[in-house]
Order: sequence, then C-alpha cells, then structure tokens
Amino acid sequence: MKKPIALVTRIDRADEQSWVNVLAGLLPESEIMFFDEMNDAQRGVAEIAIVANPDPAHVAALPNLRWIHSLWAGVERLVAELGSAAPPIVRLEDPELARVMAEAILAWTYYLHRDMPTYRRQQGAAIWHQHPYRRPGDLTVGILGMGLLGKAAAAQLKAAGFRVTGWARSSQQVDGIDMLSAESGLDRLLRESDIVVSLLPLTPETRGLLDARRFASMKAGARLINFSRGPIIVDADLIAALNTGQIAHAVLDVFDTEPLPSSSPYWLHGSVTVLPHISAPTDRNTAAAIVADNIKRYYATGALPVAIDIRRGY
Amino acid sequence: MKKPIALVTRIDRADEQSWVNVLAGLLPESEIMFFDEMNDAQRGVAEIAIVANPDPAHVAALPNLRWIHSLWAGVERLVAELGSAAPPIVRLEDPELARVMAEAILAWTYYLHRDMPTYRRQQGAAIWHQHPYRRPGDLTVGILGMGLLGKAAAAQLKAAGFRVTGWARSSQQVDGIDMLSAESGLDRLLRESDIVVSLLPLTPETRGLLDARRFASMKAGARLINFSRGPIIVDADLIAALNTGQIAHAVLDVFDTEPLPSSSPYWLHGSVTVLPHISAPTDRNTAAAIVADNIKRYYATGALPVAIDIRRGY
Repeated sequence: MKKPIALVTRIDRADEQSWVNVLAGLLPESEIMFFDEMNDAQRGVAEIAIVANPDPAHVAALPNLRWIHSLWAGVERLVAELGSAAPPIVRLEDPELARVMAEAILAWTYYLHRDMPTYRRQQGAAIWHQHPYRRPGDLTVGILGMGLLGKAAAAQLKAAGFRVTGWARSSQQVDGIDMLSAESGLDRLLRESDIVVSLLPLTPETRGLLDARRFASMKAGARLINFSRGPIIVDADLIAALNTGQIAHAVLDVFDTEPLPSSSPYWLHGSVTVLPHISAPTDRNTAAAIVADNIKRYYATGALPVAIDIRRGY
Repeated sequence: MKKPIALVTRIDRADEQSWVNVLAGLLPESEIMFFDEMNDAQRGVAEIAIVANPDPAHVAALPNLRWIHSLWAGVERLVAELGSAAPPIVRLEDPELARVMAEAILAWTYYLHRDMPTYRRQQGAAIWHQHPYRRPGDLTVGILGMGLLGKAAAAQLKAAGFRVTGWARSSQQVDGIDMLSAESGLDRLLRESDIVVSLLPLTPETRGLLDARRFASMKAGARLINFSRGPIIVDADLIAALNTGQIAHAVLDVFDTEPLPSSSPYWLHGSVTVLPHISAPTDRNTAAAIVADNIKRYYATGALPVAIDIRRGY
C-alpha cells in the first residue's frame, strides 16, 4: 500500500493541485492527498505533512505525524500557530530560490546604484541631468541575515565589485565578506552601509527591528531593500525617515499585509518602489524535487532532514 | 624643451582644465597646451593633438601633426569633419569604460528582465499583480556591435545566465557567445532576441539601421536598449513600433540631439526609459592613463598606437 502524505494548505486549489501533480510524479511510492480528502484511517497513519499556511486544526488532526515539510522558506506563521508542541518543522532551503533571490538583490542594488529611480523622476519632468557615477567598490552593501539566501546574495554582490558586509545572529565566517554579529555589529553595519538589504527571518527579535532609532543611525541618504518580511520594518518610522531624506529610497517587496492595501502611503511615495512580493518566487519544480528527496531519504533511512529551531523560530 | 601637445576641444573650459591637470601629471616631459594658448612656433612643432569634439580648423592649423588621440570612444563626428586626409586617429579604448558599459548593460537588462518598468506602472495605479518569473537562460540577449564594449557586455550577461548572441560586421569567434555576421546574421539576431542591445558605432552603414522593417522583424514584444548612438534608430519608426506593442519597451541613453529636446515624444512615452547619456561615463583617471601610455610609447619608440580605419569609420 502507498504511504499517505497529507498536503495541508490554505492556498488556492489550482495551486495546491499543481503541487500534488509535481510531487506525485517524484514520489511514486507515496500518495499525496489533500487533507480534506483523507479518511480517518489515512489521517491516522500519515507520518508526514507537506504544508503551506496550514490550518493548525488540520495539522493537529494527524495523530501519527513525525514531521512537517513547509513548501515555503519563511515559517514564522507556522511556528506561531503550531506552537512549541509541533512536530519537527523542515523549511524549504532551495538553492534555486537562493539563486533567484541573489539575482533580485543584485538587480535592485543596480537599480539604486545606477540611480534608476532618480532618472525616472527626471524623465517625468523632462530633465536632462547627469549624476556622477560611483564604482561598486565605493559602495558598501550591508546584508541583514546571512542564511542560504544571504550568503548567495553576498557572493553575487561581491562578484559584481560591491563592498559587502553581512550581519548574522551568531558570529560566523563567510569568505570575502566582512561579517558582523550582535548588537554592536548591527550598529556598525547600519552606520557604514550605503545600501541595507533585509533578508532577516521574522522572529520576535526581528519584528520591528528597523525603527526610528535604527534609521537615524544609518548614513544620511542611505537606501533600503526589504526582500524578507514586512514587519521587520516599522512603517511609520520608515516613512518619516524617507520624508526627511535620511533614507533616500526604499525598495519594498514585502509588507505587513499582502496584497498591500490601496490605502498604504507607500504606493504614492516618490521615494518608495513597491513590488508585489516578486523578488524570489518559488520554483515548483526545484522545490518539489527537494521536498521529494527529503521524504525519500526519510523512508529509506528513517533520518529526518534538519529541522528548524522552534525557539529561535527559523 | 618640453614637447608641446595640443589639446583641441569644444567642451567646457572647466572640463578641459581637468583633463590638462590629469594629463600633465602623467606626462611630465610634454607640455599639454590649450590650442588657443599656443603660439605659432608651438603649433608648428606639435606632433600630437589630444581631441574631444575639436574645431576642424584648429586641427588643420597644426602643420606637423603626426596623429590625433581622441578622448572619446565614439569618433564618427571627428571622422566626418576631418575627412580622409586627416592624420591617423586613435580612439579611446579603455577597459574601465568597457567594464562600466558591461555593468550598465547587465543593470538595464535586469531592469527589463525583472519587469521593473511594468511594476513601476502598476505602482502608480496601486495595482498588486505578479508577473511570471523567467530564468535568464530562457531569454536571449542580442548584442549589436562586438568590439571591446560588446565583448565585455556579452561576457557579463553570459556569466549572469542569459543566452547571448553577438553580431559584428565581420565574422569572428567569441568564447561562449553565439556569433553572427552579415545581413543574414542580423536578421537572425533580431528574430530570436528577447532583448536587443545596440553598441554599434555610428557609420554610414549603421545610421538608421533600426527602422520600421527591422522592428517588424523582431520578436513581438521584444525590448530594446540603445547605449551607443542615437541615429542608429529611426525615432519615428521606433515610436510606431512601441505604440503597437511590437517593441514592448525601449531604454534609450543616446539621441540624435543631446540633451534630448523637451519636445521629444520619448520623454512622456510610457514604454520608453530616457537616460541622459549616463550608461558609461569616461573615467578621467583611467582614460588619461591610457592616453599618456600611448603618447609615451610613441615618443620612446616612434610607434603609433592602432588607429581607426578611416573608411570604415571606427
């Protein structure tokens, strides 16, 4: 008999069906089932749930669950909703996702470095005015969060000639990158960076991390890219810092509420680039292959993939 | 006695003075002189003129001139004004200029690849809508003009994962790049490229090269980057192709008349990004070092640097 695996999500059904199609092809010895189509016997034996924003009650209704595989890299909501009694949670760590994110960070770093928002504004007023060119080596890009994505972004920026500083929760070494940690390291990164990039996971420690005090500690006219999670930033504080020019421009791909409500002042702010959460979309094929490999290894050896630290939150 | 070298330009005096300052430091055995401050004796012995848009009458007033060093890479105006009786013309070939141009082409290729103009338009209307991501390997970037700058751009785009095709006047091989030449090669490049980049020198053959017929031969919805010379493009034909959507977007850094007149329809066209000729500014330090090396080598050995082919025009 095929082993039932529960797919537990609150995403739209077409999207869910696409995941089942790809995963079923990669896991012929398992049966990937929508949670609401499983009977009690199937729910009773499922050892694995594959989840994307699951209803916690559904996860709780799988009594034999050994572990959970998230289809997403960001698991803060899952952690908050399931609590510390949850089975081990494995989040998606996809090198292709890291590649696309690193590419996005390089692309929007160039967008700021080559003054694209400024030239766009000038075009609207038919102004022909050249701004001085600065070599990438004259700019420091500070990356907050040096996991798989941060490391890939740092390497890409470094190869493009930018000076790169990385900040991580715990001290670590990364080749060619000036690495900082702790509160003092964060202070230094913010003080010295021309462009600050957030790739931080959302945790109780990072929620609201970039606030008025932190914006004030940054270089005058620094620029900001947030490609991780909206609540890292205190929106009102960012808007105040943009209005004084302390922060010259912000590229925001993530927001407290998504889609971004039409009432948000970000939409019409001249110093903000609003993106609809497109910096690094999941590639269903590469992601499903990683999920399937983790599951096959578990069935073959009994070994769980590396799970998140539930207290740390990622 | 120091050997007089004539600086012959029609650029502004502060800019001219900056060149003299840098060049004088690099060429202590020569005397870099503004043409209009030279006396007849000095004009009579000067063997070298360093030029940036010179008055042809001034060049003709240097009877002992052996060769001319342009401070610019583009020499079409110099060639047209001096004619075939001119002494050998050496144009600026600066690896740093090539690096900056390659960087600019990657930056604005990402701008198009990552749909930045589209997301900008959506932001103006508070529209949250995600467009599908395409990997760089699914896009072909076609580069027209494969000299020093074209080769540097091709290598950069290739390293970023794009498929790259190059078109040159004469057939040649470039590692990792699909190289085309002749009329049939141009047809194929235009037919197959998602993004077409012009780095062509302006010559009688390239003037008006991109016209209605050529735009019609491109992929529907192709994008265009012109970072070389404005007259390569027939403006009215490009605007017609943009209006039908045959060309989805154009990034233009160069124009027939610069600064771009305020009456130009490009300024307000929603499918055009106007840049004020900033893609690859000359770096005075690296450029002056190259000019100085060429001059020192000439005085030491009598050997002229490689000059342009006056009939070809570059």
